[in-house]
Amino acid sequence: MEGIGPPLATPFTEDGDLDEGSLRELVGWVEARGVDFLVPCGSNSEAELMSVEERARVVELVVEEASVPVLAGTGHPGLRETKRQTQLAADAGADGALVVTPFYFPHDEGALETYYREVADDAEIPVYLYSVPPYTNVTLSSDAAGRLADHSNVAGMKDSSGNLEAFGRTRRLAGDEFDFFVGAGSVAAHALDAGADGGILGLANVAPEACAEIYERHREGDTEGARELNASLVELNRAVTSVHGVPGLKAAMRARGAPAGYARAPHRPVDDETREELETLVAEL
Amino acid sequence: MEGIGPPLATPFTEDGDLDEGSLRELVGWVEARGVDFLVPCGSNSEAELMSVEERARVVELVVEEASVPVLAGTGHPGLRETKRQTQLAADAGADGALVVTPFYFPHDEGALETYYREVADDAEIPVYLYSVPPYTNVTLSSDAAGRLADHSNVAGMKDSSGNLEAFGRTRRLAGDEFDFFVGAGSVAAHALDAGADGGILGLANVAPEACAEIYERHREGDTEGARELNASLVELNRAVTSVHGVPGLKAAMRARGAPAGYARAPHRPVDDETREELETLVAEL
Amino acid sequence: MEGIGPPLATPFTEDGDLDEGSLRELVGWVEARGVDFLVPCGSNSEAELMSVEERARVVELVVEEASVPVLAGTGHPGLRETKRQTQLAADAGADGALVVTPFYFPHDEGALETYYREVADDAEIPVYLYSVPPYTNVTLSSDAAGRLADHSNVAGMKDSSGNLEAFGRTRRLAGDEFDFFVGAGSVAAHALDAGADGGILGLANVAPEACAEIYERHREGDTEGARELNASLVELNRAVTSVHGVPGLKAAMRARGAPAGYARAPHRPVDDETREELETLVAEL
Amino acid sequence: MEGIGPPLATPFTEDGDLDEGSLRELVGWVEARGVDFLVPCGSNSEAELMSVEERARVVELVVEEASVPVLAGTGHPGLRETKRQTQLAADAGADGALVVTPFYFPHDEGALETYYREVADDAEIPVYLYSVPPYTNVTLSSDAAGRLADHSNVAGMKDSSGNLEAFGRTRRLAGDEFDFFVGAGSVAAHALDAGADGGILGLANVAPEACAEIYERHREGDTEGARELNASLVELNRAVTSVHGVPGLKAAMRARGAPAGYARAPHRPVDDETREELETLVAEL
Repeated sequence: MEGIGPPLATPFTEDGDLDEGSLRELVGWVEARGVDFLVPCGSNSEAELMSVEERARVVELVVEEASVPVLAGTGHPGLRETKRQTQLAADAGADGALVVTPFYFPHDEGALETYYREVADDAEIPVYLYSVPPYTNVTLSSDAAGRLADHSNVAGMKDSSGNLEAFGRTRRLAGDEFDFFVGAGSVAAHALDAGADGGILGLANVAPEACAEIYERHREGDTEGARELNASLVELNRAVTSVHGVPGLKAAMRARGAPAGYARAPHRPVDDETREELETLVAEL
Repeated sequence: MEGIGPPLATPFTEDGDLDEGSLRELVGWVEARGVDFLVPCGSNSEAELMSVEERARVVELVVEEASVPVLAGTGHPGLRETKRQTQLAADAGADGALVVTPFYFPHDEGALETYYREVADDAEIPVYLYSVPPYTNVTLSSDAAGRLADHSNVAGMKDSSGNLEAFGRTRRLAGDEFDFFVGAGSVAAHALDAGADGGILGLANVAPEACAEIYERHREGDTEGARELNASLVELNRAVTSVHGVPGLKAAMRARGAPAGYARAPHRPVDDETREELETLVAEL
Repeated sequence: MEGIGPPLATPFTEDGDLDEGSLRELVGWVEARGVDFLVPCGSNSEAELMSVEERARVVELVVEEASVPVLAGTGHPGLRETKRQTQLAADAGADGALVVTPFYFPHDEGALETYYREVADDAEIPVYLYSVPPYTNVTLSSDAAGRLADHSNVAGMKDSSGNLEAFGRTRRLAGDEFDFFVGAGSVAAHALDAGADGGILGLANVAPEACAEIYERHREGDTEGARELNASLVELNRAVTSVHGVPGLKAAMRARGAPAGYARAPHRPVDDETREELETLVAEL
Repeated sequence: MEGIGPPLATPFTEDGDLDEGSLRELVGWVEARGVDFLVPCGSNSEAELMSVEERARVVELVVEEASVPVLAGTGHPGLRETKRQTQLAADAGADGALVVTPFYFPHDEGALETYYREVADDAEIPVYLYSVPPYTNVTLSSDAAGRLADHSNVAGMKDSSGNLEAFGRTRRLAGDEFDFFVGAGSVAAHALDAGADGGILGLANVAPEACAEIYERHREGDTEGARELNASLVELNRAVTSVHGVPGLKAAMRARGAPAGYARAPHRPVDDETREELETLVAEL
């Protein structure tokens, strides 16, 4: 896999039910705007707020609608549940499994490595590591990623730390065959400069065309143009991630006419002021 | 509820299956050693490493075996799953639901309060707040707890922060009707001095008699004796919580002859040196 | 040393000059209200905002005015400056030196221990360790304190972590000869229960009588009365420490009629709303 | 100012005295290797372990020896001491003052801004902001830097956070006239891509030629070459900053034949294994 993959938002109805029709539409909406693959059940999907069955159903629906590869988020705090969710994703036809570092209980790095090896041994589809310290308070080190890259079924990683030093080290330690994706939209072009194979960007739910254009410019050698475009998106990216979270992301998607639906509790809808701020940012696209 | 309740460890087989027989035995083992209530599916149970169905089953088994009240852990990162798990616990006959602060996604305090009110509105059994910053990186403030105490179905709280300032403030702000439990075994006697109604202590899986004795001494007015006994348990308490985690807890339980079983991955068994350290600490009981 | 020692605020004029007359008065003001010793140049003194010479002068003035023992804060980030400041304090007649963990550069625990041994070897007066994580992001562990207690010129410690588990462990590991002071006013009575020899409490600048009374009640065996009085002071204590800092402390002192003077920049005066909040809290004394 | 400026290490004798001769030599050593300006009394200088007088003397010596501009570190936790140190630097002939965010006491952003405005109002030389969260636990936000850039005597900033998102935002919010330097050696080339005017890099004490070459390649449009060279230096950079600190930096400098001298306590010399690791890394230059 390479290029831009949105960690697809999951449309819920105002009552919090999975809105299957909107999800199918959303797949078409982002694909029509130029993304290279799809990532259902990542953090932006609110996977941690869904049941195991709902997560499997979301992957199934996305696979059915998609004409590009599908990388499904399947990580849980425990090994058993991760294996089970990964199997369900494989059964649904996903092309790979994105496995977040186990959270809630603290584990040392040896335990994390053992965990990933067991997930990868068991999985019928390639496994991608996923480090997202803002949510888990866990950082998978570049050294650990480099060692795990030797496993034949560990195919790559999404790093959402935004730490370019770590990014460069992982790129070097994990080798060229490792599919390495940046998960921090504000520094995506820098990460491509550092050797990323693409980006899995929450922002690509709101501005798939612009994210695809960053990647395309970089691929064609216009690294400065890629950075310039990325720089123009930083305030929007912050607003739909670190500042206003998933409710902000969904409000911005609605402002663009995307079938985003509502966020699940404990998330709460953005207030009117935030909505207007997001509409202004989206209007600048 | 009042007194000492162990956040019951969940015995798993070496392969990681739920060991129902050992769980039933464990209920008897701790009850025989003087605890006042039982807390299945708390953090020490590895609930976050179990499926929804397994958690429900664990509660069911404990309710069946127990002759004391049962407070079941039912919290998930999302409202829907928490409501569902709470309903399953009520159906199984639990006397109350212990609901950890939602984790993974960050939420502001307003969202946390709304969340707890919705859980409490929906639940058929009394709801207890649960703040455990070492696992969730979330601290439910005393002010929020004080406001939530006004809800007719919010019955109390377990505070595992170990922060005596917060403990005292919550005691005062939440009022006398609020069942307030300390979750930090090293400072349990101090918390009783500060007005706790009891303790939900991981340590009570290993040393139920001693934990019950701390409570008893305090109840009889021997606050100094309670603190002295507690002080003698601090190294053991640290070893089975902050230092060696659930694998340490289970190793110490085995050293006492309790039917503890094994921990689930990503947890890994303690090494021999740690096992011996734990055996020495247990031998001092 | 034992009992209550205020980490004496340093009165500055509105222009930021040391106000020697007010400092002399302040010594009398707190002594008249029952404190057992004085701690100039602690954190509440804004020592880090003063020059070496000013710090020495403050100690000199306090020694001149005091009729109780004087424990002078002398710590800097570097060993040389700490030795020099300690010598100046000894020359001025201080009875002991309170040495904060070195800050700014991170050091491992071995380096911290070596540092304290070198300070203690060099000092002509007894040295007291000082751990205050909210300011330094450094925690001196109970284990390290226990080892340092073996040094013939390490006489004790002030622990401002508020962590009762650590407090109890240090008490045990450092032995009975170690003068152990709590620095967290909200949990002072609990710390006395855990074996503290007294408290060095910012709150004692505002409410010396009440702090002395906590200590006195505890000494006479009325531990419950000590805790009750302490509990009634928690909101005031928070307001003059963690919530509003030194500017809040000085505003509260002024509300009591103490010669507190002004805080130094970057500190800024409290706003009117905070001043009124503090006046209300002080009026309840 | 622009280009590469080493935050010059301060040579001390093994006894900890300032080694004036070695400092003079060091100025020549780095200048001969192509740096564009010099930064005495930055964090790598151990300024926080020196007296006010020593810091002034170091600046004086560097100004005397230097044939390039000199930007002197002059920040203290308090406004008075910072003003005084800045005046001493101006008197010694420094071309600018680099002022670290005030540390020890926490201050809100309004207080930080007021502080910097007062420093800049008072200073006879241009003031540069300095944000170094690893040492101070304070982050000066891009928004604050953008506002401060409007002050006629705030000339620029050194940002050692390594956060490229913040870097890009500060670049945009502070405008083109603002001299913006990266302080994180592992991401220097990325920062130049993001619009940095240069770097103030601890690494430039060990490998001034390579740092200068990164800057030169970038200036000539070879951004990829700049990043490649930077990537080859990441392990060395980590070893002399985040991993082994100032003692590591000085050991690596000695391995290169630079007159580095010794570090001051509480710093301790690196052990033999670390020394060999550093020698190996330096040998790869």
